Amino acid sequence: MSRVFNFSAGPAILPEEVLQQAREEMLDWRGSGMSVMEMSHRGKEFMSIAEQAESDLRALLQIPDNYKVMFLQGGASSQFAMVPMNLTRENTKVDYINTGSWSKKAIAEAKRFATVNLVASTEETRFTTTPGQSELNLDPGAAYVHYTPNETIQGVEFPYVPETADVPLVADFSSTILSRPLDVSKYGIIYAGAQKNIGPAGLTIAIVREDLIGNAVENTPAMFQYATHSENASMYNTPPTYGWYLAGLVFKWLQQKGGLAGMAMINRRKAEALYKAIDDSGFYANPVSPDSRSWMNVPFTLNDAGLDGKFIEEAGAAGLKTLKGHRSVGGMRASIYNAMPEEGVQVLIDFMAEFERVNG
Amino acid sequence: MSRVFNFSAGPAILPEEVLQQAREEMLDWRGSGMSVMEMSHRGKEFMSIAEQAESDLRALLQIPDNYKVMFLQGGASSQFAMVPMNLTRENTKVDYINTGSWSKKAIAEAKRFATVNLVASTEETRFTTTPGQSELNLDPGAAYVHYTPNETIQGVEFPYVPETADVPLVADFSSTILSRPLDVSKYGIIYAGAQKNIGPAGLTIAIVREDLIGNAVENTPAMFQYATHSENASMYNTPPTYGWYLAGLVFKWLQQKGGLAGMAMINRRKAEALYKAIDDSGFYANPVSPDSRSWMNVPFTLNDAGLDGKFIEEAGAAGLKTLKGHRSVGGMRASIYNAMPEEGVQVLIDFMAEFERVNG
Repeated sequence: MSRVFNFSAGPAILPEEVLQQAREEMLDWRGSGMSVMEMSHRGKEFMSIAEQAESDLRALLQIPDNYKVMFLQGGASSQFAMVPMNLTRENTKVDYINTGSWSKKAIAEAKRFATVNLVASTEETRFTTTPGQSELNLDPGAAYVHYTPNETIQGVEFPYVPETADVPLVADFSSTILSRPLDVSKYGIIYAGAQKNIGPAGLTIAIVREDLIGNAVENTPAMFQYATHSENASMYNTPPTYGWYLAGLVFKWLQQKGGLAGMAMINRRKAEALYKAIDDSGFYANPVSPDSRSWMNVPFTLNDAGLDGKFIEEAGAAGLKTLKGHRSVGGMRASIYNAMPEEGVQVLIDFMAEFERVNG
Repeated sequence: MSRVFNFSAGPAILPEEVLQQAREEMLDWRGSGMSVMEMSHRGKEFMSIAEQAESDLRALLQIPDNYKVMFLQGGASSQFAMVPMNLTRENTKVDYINTGSWSKKAIAEAKRFATVNLVASTEETRFTTTPGQSELNLDPGAAYVHYTPNETIQGVEFPYVPETADVPLVADFSSTILSRPLDVSKYGIIYAGAQKNIGPAGLTIAIVREDLIGNAVENTPAMFQYATHSENASMYNTPPTYGWYLAGLVFKWLQQKGGLAGMAMINRRKAEALYKAIDDSGFYANPVSPDSRSWMNVPFTLNDAGLDGKFIEEAGAAGLKTLKGHRSVGGMRASIYNAMPEEGVQVLIDFMAEFERVNG
């Protein structure tokens, strides 16, 4: 079959131009006679790829000079442990905000290493809202505040950046990084699994303010210390080189799309069109409070859940794939990351209208 | 330029047939309309890829049923911590054999978590030998014995499997796994970074006997517990899906080459031919004791080290790449993993003879 519109929450759709370039360079990267996968990570060819990718990411996000950028392995699930292991040597009190499934996983892991103060939880709204700044029960003596700006499963997103004064703010940006401009200087640590908006699974990016590096708790594995990776420019051990290369191709693609300001306009249009189609229908529904709706992950239900299977099947036949909602939420979920073209969202909206006409 | 012969120690050469297949399937895996990179790891397409790869690996290595196979991230460097963190809850005495640079790294990391007994060390021979069974000062009360069957940097390899009675034997097989048949039942844990003989960097395979799973020391991060990955079939978090897929292609390629018995014959011929060329020359030298020479990593020096730069430059011009020795050893190193064709070794041997004729 020809290329489909893939609404997977992650691993997720990648820009077709990026995949085409990767295909062209698969057996011979720019006259080197090797695939990028085959290159020594310490050779001049891969070093040039690695440095260009970091430089482009720094430019896209306007990362200040006092932040290190690390290209790691292990996903957000490893960061859930690395954050407390690196930040609680002198102070084990930590603040967490609970806004959904990924917040809960981060909190459960932090409890192995620290005393977690639950700053706010929206569990009573079934994670359909975000807490306001005034509702955050922040501890000014905490080692850090952790939150999840966008919950991939619930499709709920903070409409603001929490203000935490002198306490470092740590954020799991896996599902929204690079979807719009971001003020890195407001954060102590930003981390993101690559498999949604950056590249393939197996690469994790961490952006860490320098003063937070080098203070891991005793007996933290070398691979879980930010200092290890910072001091070795992410080459303490062999990094996930092919993922790093593909991320670099995505960064170049983003530059061609007008950078993050350009992506923000496109992403806003995609999200607004899809939410409008849902809200106007009377047949589809999204449970999230309008001020906290995700630009990236759009869960929706049908009035008659008995039609879910038919919707998935017919959407799939129309080339609209991976729309089944997460098992914990049910219904459907359309993840519309950077790489999902506006055309894909429009085809989905048209399909939804036709499905409603026949079945509504 | 056309494809080169790449002697990199890792990331390393991959079979050209595998790269060609990956290229063909890059934008559309078998009619799915997606790249493998874009697939949900929980979808039926990727699940079929994942299960086939594990099944093929089990068949190649004849892995007994009481061993779990895990497709992980983090490289051998993460295993250096995971092994003691998972095996020393009740007994912190551990045995390590030191035969080179990677043994030393494993030992340094283990010391964070356990009391290391150095069973044997070949440092006094500058790591040009392996200790015999009778030289191993094993502690029958140790939690495990760790060794490095092949040292990538020194090019030294055990000609036998240490006998450790009831104490589990743990081995870092990163540089020789799949190069020949292996009796998995002799080991408690086998682990290997993929980037030498399996696939791209960023994938790590661990083969763990079931009785060694589920006993991690307190406060081990979830991602560093074998139980986490075993209970979730390596999908506790998003695995490195593209590396897993490529490893599967490599496993199929190995089957077509006659499996590990077939590879053993080819690899033996390659190694014997290259060592013979070195030993017969009087111009090149390999310092390793003949009974402990690696089949995969062949370091060699020139009589006149002042010619090293010229050798590297002219070899590169002849399409023989990444031959520079590790900085800690100097000289040259030819890594001749499974994917290096016999032709590549012969071209190197011919080049070496001609270089000697002109410069010797």
